[in-house]
Amino acid sequence: MKSAILCIGTEITTGLVKDLNAHFLAFNLTAVGLFPKLVLFVPDHKETITKTLQFLFKDEEIQSIFITGGLGPTQDDLTREILAEFIGKKLCFVPEQWDNIIRFYQKIRHTLPPDNNKKQAFIPEGSLLLENPLGTAPGFIISFQDKKIYVIPGVPKETQYFWPIIKTHLPSNDNQFYRSEMIKACGVGESLFETKLQPILMSLPDTLQSAYLPYFGEVWFYLYSYQKNPQVIQSAENILKKIKEAWKPYLFSRWGDTLEQACGNLLIEKHLTIATAESCSGGLLSHRLTNIPGSSAYFNRGYVVYSNQAKIDTIGVPSSLITQHGAVSEEVARALAEGVREKSHADIGIGITGIAGPSGGSEQKPVGLVYIGISYSQHNQVQKYLFSGDREVIKILSTQSALTQLFFQLQRGINDER
Amino acid sequence: MKSAILCIGTEITTGLVKDLNAHFLAFNLTAVGLFPKLVLFVPDHKETITKTLQFLFKDEEIQSIFITGGLGPTQDDLTREILAEFIGKKLCFVPEQWDNIIRFYQKIRHTLPPDNNKKQAFIPEGSLLLENPLGTAPGFIISFQDKKIYVIPGVPKETQYFWPIIKTHLPSNDNQFYRSEMIKACGVGESLFETKLQPILMSLPDTLQSAYLPYFGEVWFYLYSYQKNPQVIQSAENILKKIKEAWKPYLFSRWGDTLEQACGNLLIEKHLTIATAESCSGGLLSHRLTNIPGSSAYFNRGYVVYSNQAKIDTIGVPSSLITQHGAVSEEVARALAEGVREKSHADIGIGITGIAGPSGGSEQKPVGLVYIGISYSQHNQVQKYLFSGDREVIKILSTQSALTQLFFQLQRGINDER
Repeated sequence: MKSAILCIGTEITTGLVKDLNAHFLAFNLTAVGLFPKLVLFVPDHKETITKTLQFLFKDEEIQSIFITGGLGPTQDDLTREILAEFIGKKLCFVPEQWDNIIRFYQKIRHTLPPDNNKKQAFIPEGSLLLENPLGTAPGFIISFQDKKIYVIPGVPKETQYFWPIIKTHLPSNDNQFYRSEMIKACGVGESLFETKLQPILMSLPDTLQSAYLPYFGEVWFYLYSYQKNPQVIQSAENILKKIKEAWKPYLFSRWGDTLEQACGNLLIEKHLTIATAESCSGGLLSHRLTNIPGSSAYFNRGYVVYSNQAKIDTIGVPSSLITQHGAVSEEVARALAEGVREKSHADIGIGITGIAGPSGGSEQKPVGLVYIGISYSQHNQVQKYLFSGDREVIKILSTQSALTQLFFQLQRGINDER
Repeated sequence: MKSAILCIGTEITTGLVKDLNAHFLAFNLTAVGLFPKLVLFVPDHKETITKTLQFLFKDEEIQSIFITGGLGPTQDDLTREILAEFIGKKLCFVPEQWDNIIRFYQKIRHTLPPDNNKKQAFIPEGSLLLENPLGTAPGFIISFQDKKIYVIPGVPKETQYFWPIIKTHLPSNDNQFYRSEMIKACGVGESLFETKLQPILMSLPDTLQSAYLPYFGEVWFYLYSYQKNPQVIQSAENILKKIKEAWKPYLFSRWGDTLEQACGNLLIEKHLTIATAESCSGGLLSHRLTNIPGSSAYFNRGYVVYSNQAKIDTIGVPSSLITQHGAVSEEVARALAEGVREKSHADIGIGITGIAGPSGGSEQKPVGLVYIGISYSQHNQVQKYLFSGDREVIKILSTQSALTQLFFQLQRGINDER
C-alpha cells in the first residue's frame, strides 16, 4: 500500500531549516507497510500547493496522504484554506477547538489568545478533529475521492506526538512493500564490501532489489521488494545470510543499530567502562556515546581537552611530549588514551587529537590529520587518519573512526586480554 | 526564476537516511535567486520517476531541474536510463569518462574497476559531462524542451563538490524571488514575540509575505516576495527595522547565525574564555561550541561528568552536596559551574545537570528536569527547566537554554562586572 508525504513551508524549500518531519514520517510509514511513493516539499504558495495536490490525487496507487505544516495562526499559513477549497468543503468553526486554544493559552501563557488564533479553530467540514495538547493547531483527517488525508502540525515535536494517534486511523494494510532487515558494516574500504557483495547479488531474483549505501565510512545494505509474499521473504533471507557470512568480521549491526549502540551493547555484555579525551572532535564522541539510553552503565566520563594546557592539566599529558611531537601526534593521542583511562579508572580510554580546520593546518600537519588512540590494560593502539571535508565532517569522521576502532577491539576480545 | 530539486533514492523515501542534498541545494539555489518551487524525493522506481519528471515538465515556471542520486554502478541506480528515455535520447559511451573511472579505481583502490562500473561511462546524447574526481559517477547537464536539467551524484560530499561547477552553468537570473535577512531571537516565550510582531505586520504590503518559525526555544523571522524590485526591498527593510527594534533585547542573530556563533562572537569581542561541565547533555554543549571555527580562542575545555564520582573527582563538587540535594539539583548545577570555572581558569563556567531519560526519573525529579548554572567572577546564576521530549530533544533543549543564558549574560555585560 502506497502513501505520499507533503510538507508545506517556505522555510524548508529555501533551505533555512532541515526537514525532520518527512524523515520521521517516511521511516514510520514504511515500518507499518505504507510505503511512501512520493515525498514533497512545497513553499507556502497557494498555486503550488494546489497543483501538487492535483498531482497526488491523479496517482491511483497512493491511498493515504500525510500533510504537515502551514497550520499556524499567521497569514502565511494556508494549508487549511487551500485544502478545503481543493476538496470542495467549507471551513467550519469548531467551538471545542476554540476552547482548547483558550485553555492552552491560559495554561502556558497565562493570557487569552489573540484573535488571529481563531482561524486554528476552523477545519474542513466533515473532518475528524485531532486535539493537540502541545500547541494551538489541531490535526484533522478527511477523506476525498479514493484517498484519506491526514493533516498534522509541522512543529516536529507535534508531528511526532500525532503519529501514534494517526496510526490508529490508518487503512488496514495488505503490505505490498517489503523491506528486509538492514545490515551495516564498517572498518575497511567500500570496495572490499562491494567485491564480496557482487557475486552474491548475481542470484538476486527479479522480484527483489538491493540498496547499498556508503555512510561516513560505514556501508549499509538491505533488500526490498514491491511485492510481499513468503517466497520473496525467503529469497531475501537466503541472500542476506550469505552476505552476512561474507561481511562477518566487519558486520556491526542488524536491524539498523548505530555504531555507538553496537559499541554500547558490547560494553554492557563485557561489563566494561569507557572514558574519552577529545581534542578536535570537541565532545562529539561523548555526545554520541551518551545518546544511547542506559549509557551511564558504561560511560564513565569525558574530557574535552581543547587547549594544550587542558591536555596537561586534566589528563596529565607531559608537556615535553607536546613540545617535542606537537599536540597533533601519535604520541599525544596515546598519552590521552592512556591518561584518561587511568585518571577515570575506566577499562578503556579513547584519545582523539587532530586538526578540524578550516585554519590551523600546515604542510606537515594538514587540516584533516587526526590521530586516534585506544588504551585498555597494557595495550595501546594509535591510528592515523587523513580526512577530507569541512570542520563538521572531520569531527564526524573522527568519531566514526574512534567508534570503529572501539568496536573491533571489543569484538576481538578486550575482555580476554585483561 | 524558479527551480525544482528531485532526489532519487529509496533510502530517503523509506526514512533510512536523512536528506542532506535537498537541503544543501535548496539553500544555495535560493541564495542565487533560483527559488525552489518544488522539492521531491522519489524511490528508485521507474514509473514513479517518470511520472515525477512529467509533472515537473508541465510546470512552465520551473526553468531548471536539479537531480541527485541513482547514478551508482548497481542495478538499482536508474537515473541515467530513465532520464535518457524520458527526453528521447540514447545513452552514449564516453571513453574519457571510462578512463576517469579506471584512473579513479587505480588511484584509490589499486585495482581495475569491475564491469558494472561501465554503465557510469554512459550519459544521454548531447549532455555536457561534468567530471567527478571524488567518485566514479560523473555529473551531466542537458537541455530538454524549455528546461535545463542538472544531474549530479547523490553522495553528499560529491553533491557539494559539484555545486560551484554547476553554478557556472546556471541561467542568467532575473531574480524574481526575494528573501530578506533572517533575524533570530531567544529567551522569552514565543507569545511575547508574536505580540510584538502582530501590530507591525498590519502594515505588510500584499507583495511581501512573512515567515515566522519557532525552533527549539528560538524564533526565526524573515520576509519574502515573489517579486524583487527596489520598492519591495525598501518595504521589507522598513518592516524589519521595526521588528528588530521591538525584539531588541532578545535578538541574537541577523543573517541567520546560530546561537553558538552569536555567543562566540561576544566572547571574542569581550576577550572572555569559557569552560563547561556537562552531565545530562553529555558533551553536546562543548560539541556545539567547538563547531564554530576559531572557537579555540575562547573555549578552554569541557568536562562530561556523567557519574557522581566524575563530578566529585574532576570538578570538586562536594560529595555531601550530592548526598544532600541529589546530583540533579540547583546546588550541584551551581557547584559544577563554579567549579569548572575555577578549575579551568576560565572567565565563565557553565554547569548542566538533569535527567535526559527515558529512565531515571521519579515523581520529585521527573525526566526532563534540568538545572543550568552559569558562573562568572563572584556571580552565579542557576535556572531550572522542565523539558518534554525524548532523550535527544532534552539534550538539545538543555544546550539551547545554556547558550541562551550565556548570550544574555554576555550581552548584559559580564565584562562590566568583572
